[in-house]
Parts: sequence; C-alpha cells; structure tokens
Amino acid sequence: MAKNKIDINMSRLKAAFEVSSKIGATEKNGLTRLTLTEEDRKIRDIFVQWLKEEGLSVRIDDVGNIYGKREGRNKNAKSIMIGSHLDTQPRGGRFDGVLGVLSSLEVIRTLNENNIVTERPIEIVNFTNEEGERFTPPMIGSGVATGNYTKEFAYGLRDKNGVSFEEALNEIGYNGQEENRLSNVEYFVELHIEQGPLLEKNRKEIGIVKGVKGMTRFEVTVTGHASHGAHPAYGRKDALVAASKMVLAIDEVTKSYEDLSTTVGVFEVFPSVVNIFAGEVRFTFDVRHLDDQIRNRVISNIKENLKRISEESEVVCSIKQTWNIDGTHFSTELTGLILEETNKLNYSHQYIVSGAGHDAKFMNDICKTAMIFTPSANGFSHCEEEYTSYEDIQKATTLLLNVVMELANKV
Amino acid sequence: MAKNKIDINMSRLKAAFEVSSKIGATEKNGLTRLTLTEEDRKIRDIFVQWLKEEGLSVRIDDVGNIYGKREGRNKNAKSIMIGSHLDTQPRGGRFDGVLGVLSSLEVIRTLNENNIVTERPIEIVNFTNEEGERFTPPMIGSGVATGNYTKEFAYGLRDKNGVSFEEALNEIGYNGQEENRLSNVEYFVELHIEQGPLLEKNRKEIGIVKGVKGMTRFEVTVTGHASHGAHPAYGRKDALVAASKMVLAIDEVTKSYEDLSTTVGVFEVFPSVVNIFAGEVRFTFDVRHLDDQIRNRVISNIKENLKRISEESEVVCSIKQTWNIDGTHFSTELTGLILEETNKLNYSHQYIVSGAGHDAKFMNDICKTAMIFTPSANGFSHCEEEYTSYEDIQKATTLLLNVVMELANKV
Repeated sequence: MAKNKIDINMSRLKAAFEVSSKIGATEKNGLTRLTLTEEDRKIRDIFVQWLKEEGLSVRIDDVGNIYGKREGRNKNAKSIMIGSHLDTQPRGGRFDGVLGVLSSLEVIRTLNENNIVTERPIEIVNFTNEEGERFTPPMIGSGVATGNYTKEFAYGLRDKNGVSFEEALNEIGYNGQEENRLSNVEYFVELHIEQGPLLEKNRKEIGIVKGVKGMTRFEVTVTGHASHGAHPAYGRKDALVAASKMVLAIDEVTKSYEDLSTTVGVFEVFPSVVNIFAGEVRFTFDVRHLDDQIRNRVISNIKENLKRISEESEVVCSIKQTWNIDGTHFSTELTGLILEETNKLNYSHQYIVSGAGHDAKFMNDICKTAMIFTPSANGFSHCEEEYTSYEDIQKATTLLLNVVMELANKV
Repeated sequence: MAKNKIDINMSRLKAAFEVSSKIGATEKNGLTRLTLTEEDRKIRDIFVQWLKEEGLSVRIDDVGNIYGKREGRNKNAKSIMIGSHLDTQPRGGRFDGVLGVLSSLEVIRTLNENNIVTERPIEIVNFTNEEGERFTPPMIGSGVATGNYTKEFAYGLRDKNGVSFEEALNEIGYNGQEENRLSNVEYFVELHIEQGPLLEKNRKEIGIVKGVKGMTRFEVTVTGHASHGAHPAYGRKDALVAASKMVLAIDEVTKSYEDLSTTVGVFEVFPSVVNIFAGEVRFTFDVRHLDDQIRNRVISNIKENLKRISEESEVVCSIKQTWNIDGTHFSTELTGLILEETNKLNYSHQYIVSGAGHDAKFMNDICKTAMIFTPSANGFSHCEEEYTSYEDIQKATTLLLNVVMELANKV
C-alpha cells in the first residue's frame, strides 16, 4: 500500500514546533497565547503562510476559523478534516491543541512531497478560542461552525477588559466570511495530548478516544458563622470544616465508578484571617463521565451527601447547577479504523474517554469524528510543565497520516 | 456589710454604652473603632472627661494607656486595677473590651455617689491596641506596661498604610509619659464578654475565668500539582483534597481533650479556577489549651497526622510555627474571692478557661489577676452580631463592684 511507503519528516515537524513555541513563550517553557491576541495573530499569519506554501486554498470564516483545503480527485466527495487549535491557556503548554494543528500540517506536507493524490479532499483547520479563557465558554470557533452557538452569541462575549469577541477578531484581522465556514465534511480526526496520566502509566503509545465525558458543573455556597478562634470547639458553625467534608465526599465518589472524575476548582474562604474561623466558603465542582445516566446518579449522590453534611455541621448549603453538557460518543467506524491502523503500525494502545471538551466534541454533531491521544508526561496539561516526547509525536503523526490516507481513498 | 447596701445605676451604665456605641458605629449595630484612629481619639476624650468628672487623677503613659486613680484611705496600700480596652476589630461588636471599661467606670461612679471610702486606691484603665488588628501583635498597651514588650518594639509597629504606632499615638494626642505607667498594683480584675457559647448553653450568669489558654500557631503549605479537570481521578496530586483531610484532622483532635480548641483561619487555594484542581493550599492553624503539656502533645499528634496525610496523598507539606504563648493560670486567691461574692449574690456560674488573649494575661505577670465573663449570645464576638443583654451586664457589674469593695478594704 502506498501509505506504508511514505514517512513523515520529523525534523520538519520539530522545526514547526520550534517556531510555534516562541510565539507567546513563557520563562518556563510554556506558552501564553490567548485567543485573538497579538500572539495569536502572529502564529495565525505564519500558519496561513505555511498553508499557502503547500498550495492549499485558504479560507477564514466569520469567527476566525482558518481552513486550508487540499483538493481530491473526486470533486463530489466530502472532505476529511484534521486539525485542532493554536490558542493556549495563560501559562499553558506548548503541545495541547498545537500538536493537532502542526501534525496535520505535517500530514499535508508529507502527502505533497510524495505527490500523493487522494480521492477525497483533505482540509486542515485551526479553530478559534478553543480554550475559553479569554472569552468564556470554550470551543467557540467549532461551536459556531457546527451550529451549537450563534454568531451573535460569540460576537457578544467580552473579555475581562470589556473587549468583545468581534472587536478582538477585527483587531487582529481575522474576521472572515460566513460563507467560508466548513461544509461537506465526512470525517474529522483530531490528534491531541491526553491531558491525563493513563497512557504513561500503562506504557501505551496511542490512545484511541471513544468519546468525551459529559460534564455538569455546580456552584456551592456554605454558610456557617465566623467567630473568634477563642470560641470553644463546642458550638462552632465552621464553614471550612463543613466544606472540607464536602470536598472529600465529592472526591470519594470517584472510587465507585470507572472513568468518573470530579474536580473542586474555585475554593474561597471568608474571612480567611488567622484569628477567625470561616463563616462562608464558596466553591465550584464538576462531575465528568461519558455515561449520562451514571453522571446523573453520581450528582444525586453528591447532593445527598452535601445535604447530610450541612445538617450534621449545622451550616446552610446552597447548590446551583451552572453548566451541563452530555457525554459524546465518537464514531465507532472511525475508532475501529484507527485501531486497525494502530495495529498495522504495531503501536501499543488503549481506549480512552476524554475528560476535557475538545473541538471534536462539536464536530461529532455534524460528521463522523474521533480523536487520537498521545501520552502526557505525568498527566500534566494547561501548565508550563506540559510535555509530550517527539518520539510519541512521531508515532501519533504517522498514525494520523495513515488514517487520513485510508479515509481519503475510501469514498 | 456596706457593699450590700449599694447598687449600681443601670440607666447610667446604659447611657454610657449608648455614647460608646455611636463612635465608630457600623450599619449593623457593630463598631469599627480601630486603635489610635480618629474614632479611638473621640471615645478616649469622652472617657477622660468622665474620669475627671468623677474626680479621678488621670494619667496617660507613653503607649497611650489611660489611667484614672481614686485614692484610698491607706496611702501605702497598693492599687486594685479594673478596666479593659475601648478599641475594636473592624466591624466588631459594641461589648467586647468596652464592657470592661464602662462597667469599671460604673463601679467608680457608684462608689462616689455613695461616698464610699476604701482602704486601697482603685484605678481604672483603658489599654491601647488590645485588638492588634491595625498594629499586630495585640495587647500592646498592657504588654509594654508589664514589660512584655519594649516601647521601641511598640513604636516601630506599622499599619498597612505604613503609619507607625508612634506616629498614630502622636496624631491623636495620646503620647504621654513613661513615668505614668502603672505601678504598685496588687490586683487586676477584668470584666469581659465570654466570646464563646458555654455560659449561654449552660444557662449560667457568670463565668469565673481560671486562666487563658496557651496558643501555638502554625503556617502550613501543601504542595501538590495543579492540572486540568479533564485529568482522570487516578494519579492526581490535588492539594485541596489533601488540605481538606488536614482541616478535618485538626478539627477532630478537639474531641480528645476538654477545653481544647483548634482553628484553621487563613485558607488560600491556588489557582482556584473552575477548570483546574489545586496545586497549592496555604493555611494557618492554632491550638489552644491552658495546659502546656497537653497542648504540646496535641501539636505532636496533629503534626504526625499532617505528615501521614501528605504521604498518603503524595503531596508535600511544610509546617512552620509562627507564634507560641504558654497557658496563663490566674490567681486562685482572686478566683476564690470572685466565687464567694458570686455565691453571696446568688448568681449561677461556672469556671471557664478563656480561649482568647486579654490584657489580663499580661497583668497576671505583675499582680494577682482574674477575669469575670458575661454570656455572649450564640457565642459570637468580633462581629456585628456580638450581643450581651443588659440584664447580664447588670449582674456582672454588680459582682465587679462587690469584688472591688471586698478587695479595696483587704489590706
């Protein structure tokens, strides 16, 4: 088969990473490249230049998504789309979404230098604001492109300085046309770092992602009564002691179900001064699981626990749901094909359920979608220590190339 | 006995409270009257005026302590000192130290209007900066007057705006002479609100304070590793989960010893954002008990627990001791006398060990000292809800009067 005869060029891919890793670089090897900032503009300009050098036709849509299309032999065939996002968290990592974009570029470059003609067109994409840090919620580019969000919703989002998404888009010169949005896509494959420790722990080279956990997020306020530390142990309504029990109850529940995770994120104590025990604690928690039924059962269980703890601790607890997104099941046709190609390449692998949202989550609504994960050292992500070895990147990119070639000729 | 024939004037005492409660009043019936501020100056000026109206000789010492002396018949006899402090916490209560000063004033007024001549002189005192909120540490006025702190140490303290204690003292015109410091004092009796729930819970009218708990304070840093909430439950080093276990271990230990209290005060979580679990938690805790041996045993126990939790949670924990003050045992001669007078008045009572520091703590170093506590509604203090009924205040002030009259004739 043709695809076994060609190889990606790892030094070329490294060189692309070296360029990307300098734009928004932090002191400790991370990246701060928030969406629609000057840093984002710089990497976009370079990316567009690279696409043009490969002879792709480049389009920018009305939320700044960048597409580069490599035509296929069959003019009626739907595209295979590959890619991810080039924006990062503040002091985030160099790999995260960048890997998905640069590996896709390497796939295109490899096909080009080997003069491979495919049946289907292949499109590469860089989605706007996957991270959602500057403009919340995340995955705005893919959300609008797939009809999950309206353009008006996206344009009206404001960052903490009051700048709107639309203003920021115009400011960096990436406000394109609505008619440039993606269409006629049959498959979407996104390569991404795992953002978890499982592949490393299990010594697997490839993660085949079955889906994305659904997530429900809550805000909790625990109200006790602050008083002087001179107050005897008896009769205190210490909001921190109660909230600590809640944190442990929320953590403990993860032991009951496989692939369940919970996270207490924001955690604020009032008044938080040395001599006074806490009168109020506000915290957020989320519950993530692929299976919506299991997730809802766990949420009921947590709510009951929080209620019981409040009563026992004589504090008042309010729980407000702030976000819900159901579990996403990726295309079994695609995960099956990825498994086949992984086996042909003799890479060790395992199935994974992603805990994080990804552009693939929205793409799954409009086309057959799956993801490939590479190992993340220590499971770290969204931090400067985020790391994936070039050895692992080489394997994953080779797999992506082979998957793309298989799909590109399957009409 | 003469002392049974005279009564305090409750409407006069109420009127004094009404004056005090307006100076630094907060919207919700509390007081913000930080030491050496303009509000403090106002109440001091009024207090000095009241002392002068009672014919007392007024002195101001070099840390702003105000003394008013009522001479006794016996010129060689040492004084009985009574009083407390007029400063408050930010959004603190109307009673706290104010009760000790105004009840003492009422004792003097009652003696005067009944033309009672005592053997010993009686001195009333208002100590500077008992609260220690604007200038840390607390109890600076009594600390310098009793030789626990030097004047230089006090003068060099600075508030958060960089203003020194000495500048603030000069600014409000209360920088007096070193030779005016207290001397020749035999007894010190301080009336104060309980700042705890025991008297109310046990339906007792009077608390006879046996001593002040010793206190040791620590700063703890728990270092795990922050990462994205997408990280599976497995392999997390969540600093908040570990710290929550520590909070509960520190709280749990109070069940093993009577009159033991522990407080986690400051509690800060990093980064405290919705999508990331905690990489670091910093918190303070203190351990309070009258018996130094018990306190030290409890501290060892807590340290072992924190170490065990760190190991089990795979986080790093550093513990730094920042403050230690041993337990204070008040004069049994004085607590015995207070008990006798309480019984004569048929007031219900119980012994109490104070969890908070008080000026009496330092006074105990230089003279026979004890304290009388009144009930605090719900045990609240250092907050606007702090409340003690006038009924309870009347009983405690009557007791104080009788104790003073007993001591004043006992030479």
